[in-house]
Amino acid sequence: MPNTFYGKKVNEEIILNEEETAHIKITRKVEGEKVKVITGDGLLYTTSIVKIGKKETILEIIDKEKPQEDNKPYVSVYLGMSKWDRMHLLLEKMVELRANSFYLYRGEKSEINYKNLNKFQRTIIETSKQTIFAHIPQINFVKFDEIPKENTIVLDLDEKNDNLGKVLKELKGREKINLVVGPEYGFSKREKDFFYTNSFKTVNLGKSIFRFETSVIYAMSIINYEYNRLFI
Amino acid sequence: MPNTFYGKKVNEEIILNEEETAHIKITRKVEGEKVKVITGDGLLYTTSIVKIGKKETILEIIDKEKPQEDNKPYVSVYLGMSKWDRMHLLLEKMVELRANSFYLYRGEKSEINYKNLNKFQRTIIETSKQTIFAHIPQINFVKFDEIPKENTIVLDLDEKNDNLGKVLKELKGREKINLVVGPEYGFSKREKDFFYTNSFKTVNLGKSIFRFETSVIYAMSIINYEYNRLFI
Repeated sequence: MPNTFYGKKVNEEIILNEEETAHIKITRKVEGEKVKVITGDGLLYTTSIVKIGKKETILEIIDKEKPQEDNKPYVSVYLGMSKWDRMHLLLEKMVELRANSFYLYRGEKSEINYKNLNKFQRTIIETSKQTIFAHIPQINFVKFDEIPKENTIVLDLDEKNDNLGKVLKELKGREKINLVVGPEYGFSKREKDFFYTNSFKTVNLGKSIFRFETSVIYAMSIINYEYNRLFI
Repeated sequence: MPNTFYGKKVNEEIILNEEETAHIKITRKVEGEKVKVITGDGLLYTTSIVKIGKKETILEIIDKEKPQEDNKPYVSVYLGMSKWDRMHLLLEKMVELRANSFYLYRGEKSEINYKNLNKFQRTIIETSKQTIFAHIPQINFVKFDEIPKENTIVLDLDEKNDNLGKVLKELKGREKINLVVGPEYGFSKREKDFFYTNSFKTVNLGKSIFRFETSVIYAMSIINYEYNRLFI
């Protein structure tokens, strides 16, 4: 895995925070040395270390490049709050599969209620660094009934729903897709009714039984393949 | 997740071993109660508990059903030995995605040398139980140079290789596919030369950077989708 850092761009410099500065020290970088940095703006920067301080590091930008094409369509993933070990794995894999943004909601069957997004953000940044995803995804809270209806696919493995492949073919050419997944124990009766009465596209993934996080990773893989999002 | 057990069929009875007997006790099952069991033969058995002993449990078969269609093509996965946390995650997801059999080999860049397959087998059985995969996959050791050439796809993310989608279209209709993945740090120069001089089909997955286990999960997802293996 490439050793890439995460910083904030301030004018023509990039500043690493305390955590990233610790990372700089662990990897034994010294002032004057070159390092690669992402800031979330889609570019991969080559920088030179100006100063390694106690709580921050200052980098001078030497060069910049676009490490990948833009992945189209833009995919937002709406995740029902579930236990952290599963959310963590899911988030990692979804960043690797180049989901563009995340929304976290509390479903009626959610067993947990997250109050802040710090550890989610750290996981997203860490995976973005390791796999050089220069458009670092954002994550925000959302209310269940604010999930948008347009261009939205709801993953609900009920056999009576359409299969994902069919719905992806119908939505081909859209600029933006929303993928909605329930929490680990799925949607409540009331939530399902909300989707049905509002004509959301609810889909299944065929005849297999999947663990929560696997179904989402599988669905995202298929979205990438069907839409050639990763130029395969 | 359904509560399913794993046993061995002996004539018209199914016997659970010590580990599964402990599981029966944890779930507070009692003699006379009905439980679902898989044995690896493709059937899901409904049984009645005859006797819960110290080290084994005897079950009487009441009914049997075929829980899924056969997934075609048959997929064998050749895995380069890598650290257990990643192998474990990979194996779980590959069982969920219905890989049919596994072969473990020691690659030149393998950092570890497994001597027995017990924990691999336990992971495979555990995931098969949880996701009701009644054709429980087998795992065996194999030598690198015994990897078969016929119908074989080698995952090597080098840009000069064909993309997976193209090769899958070429192989459509085959009864059996072999998917070969290197260990975490990839193939050595000599191993790559072996594939090239023997005209193996080497493929990449597009322009993204993936962690070791993610590339295999992604490739298996695409195989399932392209061949409609899970009836999506």
